[in-house]
Amino acid sequence: MTALETLIEALKRLPGVGQKSAQRMAYHLLQHDRAAMPRLAEALMAAGEHIRHCERCHTFSETPICAVCADPERDARLLCVVETPADQAALERTGSYRGYYFVLLGRLSPLDGIGTGRIGAAELLARAAEDGVEEVILATSFTAEGEATAHVLAEALRVRGVKSTRLARGVPVGSELEYVDLGTIAHALSDRR
Amino acid sequence: MTALETLIEALKRLPGVGQKSAQRMAYHLLQHDRAAMPRLAEALMAAGEHIRHCERCHTFSETPICAVCADPERDARLLCVVETPADQAALERTGSYRGYYFVLLGRLSPLDGIGTGRIGAAELLARAAEDGVEEVILATSFTAEGEATAHVLAEALRVRGVKSTRLARGVPVGSELEYVDLGTIAHALSDRR
Ligand SMILES: [Zn+2]
Ligand SMILES: [Zn+2]
Repeated sequence: MTALETLIEALKRLPGVGQKSAQRMAYHLLQHDRAAMPRLAEALMAAGEHIRHCERCHTFSETPICAVCADPERDARLLCVVETPADQAALERTGSYRGYYFVLLGRLSPLDGIGTGRIGAAELLARAAEDGVEEVILATSFTAEGEATAHVLAEALRVRGVKSTRLARGVPVGSELEYVDLGTIAHALSDRR
Repeated sequence: MTALETLIEALKRLPGVGQKSAQRMAYHLLQHDRAAMPRLAEALMAAGEHIRHCERCHTFSETPICAVCADPERDARLLCVVETPADQAALERTGSYRGYYFVLLGRLSPLDGIGTGRIGAAELLARAAEDGVEEVILATSFTAEGEATAHVLAEALRVRGVKSTRLARGVPVGSELEYVDLGTIAHALSDRR
């Protein structure tokens, strides 16, 4: 493979990028924006090296404990459970939530072999059992798998005497939280059940 | 800026990638395809280092003379002029052209200060004056600027006694007339064979 073909193949690994887009990207960079190439290369290497998961909430973090978990000003009574770091970032951008998070890094999907072990359910239950946690907000997506995940977690929390709530159904059914507009997320948060 | 923010900013330099897509790409890579990150980084570095322009036709090449220009089996009577390496690659993929190429790396755009010097017109005229060249096919795009470029080059070639032709304008193969823009239909009508 030539360097051009290798570049096109590598660009095709990006989500939503097919052969045509990858070609267009490669030709654009080579002809019009060579400076962006080492810049993107370095950003990829640095991100791959430095971005790990927060030991406490499992979101992406460059430090062992992320900025949110390290912030003593957050409301320790609230713990919000989301599927992905992108969901956590979207909730954070609404500016209407002041508690802590727990990121599952997935959702239950028995058909794909993703059980409670893979989404850190045990760590979540231990985290929820900590002093001060009064409410676990289950903010998994409103897809069949997200609902099933919320259901299983709510049951496990109930058995342990921990109150859980679900985001209000202001969030359109069938959509991924990450792509929902911020206002809708903010309303769903305040209307949580 | 965090490594994540830097990565998102760098991804936004790719054509057609805005804030949302860049975020989606970064989160996807970090969560699901970490192996793609050093791979893309290396491909970008290698491409930036090794891909230069063919000394003869100006298309992208990892060797001083590209594979097409170095191929003695091509038809030396034909020289096809295109705007970009992507256009050259598209023509080459059709498998229906056996001559050589000349890539302008642009098109005339006096308003943007892009004159004949910037598109290598002098090199093209020298190349077209070489022994054996019988026809220069002007395959610049059918935009106002592409048409103007073809017109200026055709005139310069005519003065030097070199025959030039233009790609036929017409209805794209496989398309329904109903969905073709009116300008294209009008040209197809007047250029009918
Ligand atoms: Zn954290
Ligand atoms: Zn060449």
